[in-house]
Amino acid sequence: MTVDSGVIHDIVLTPLNVIADERGAVLHMLRCDRAPFGQFGEVYFSEATAGVVKGWKRHKRMTQNFAVPVGTMKVVLFDDRPDSPSFGTIQEVLLGRPDAYRLLTVPPMIWYGFKALGDDSALMANCASIPHEPLEGETVPLSTQGIPYVW
Amino acid sequence: MTVDSGVIHDIVLTPLNVIADERGAVLHMLRCDRAPFGQFGEVYFSEATAGVVKGWKRHKRMTQNFAVPVGTMKVVLFDDRPDSPSFGTIQEVLLGRPDAYRLLTVPPMIWYGFKALGDDSALMANCASIPHEPLEGETVPLSTQGIPYVW
Repeated sequence: MTVDSGVIHDIVLTPLNVIADERGAVLHMLRCDRAPFGQFGEVYFSEATAGVVKGWKRHKRMTQNFAVPVGTMKVVLFDDRPDSPSFGTIQEVLLGRPDAYRLLTVPPMIWYGFKALGDDSALMANCASIPHEPLEGETVPLSTQGIPYVW
Repeated sequence: MTVDSGVIHDIVLTPLNVIADERGAVLHMLRCDRAPFGQFGEVYFSEATAGVVKGWKRHKRMTQNFAVPVGTMKVVLFDDRPDSPSFGTIQEVLLGRPDAYRLLTVPPMIWYGFKALGDDSALMANCASIPHEPLEGETVPLSTQGIPYVW
């Protein structure tokens, strides 16, 4: 069961090219001379086993750029920024292959979680604006009452 | 049949952390505050279907940082830089899961190709020092006589 999915202020979805090739596709992600690039801090990957949810997490200063080059994921975002015009909104975004290969840009202070859909694991790539710092991110359990979403 | 694999001057292999997690691993790749980072130009992916070889290619100005977060690839490098101490050398590098998750840094003017090993396709990630420019890269057929390697 999920609540209605809305649109969160400042969340940006950017189409990405997939260059088909019988030997294997080339998939664009982010380049320094095109939007939505801001700053490069770190690129890393997070796998999710089929059916597994990773979350909830948010970052205080990091802007994240997510793409899913393998498999499909549902990303759920929650805006509890008091000054945001979309305060209280949940947004669901599908990312991945074959029909949703695109870039999801998430500004700081947005809660997020993601789940691998289908029978296979999926790979999330994140090209973030700052490198990982242990105390810059916060985590709360999926069962929290503070986020109105049931996976 | 391959020739002996040597070591090419300026090719750098950097160990990368894989943070195991029953929900799916987190895999580091490159961050701005640690070697071998130089400059961020573009991050993109190149799939290779099982058994397929992509190559030969080289870049005139781009430094490439390769990692294979899904599957396993053999990367073959050839140095024909006249002034290089390893001029004429072929180097083979295994990249990927589960035992060779690491970063391969390739400076400009090195020829390279890669092949997905095993029964599944593999995913190459490249975090390059400059964004893609059509005339900055060169390609020659795998059958070229100029590179002493038989895939």
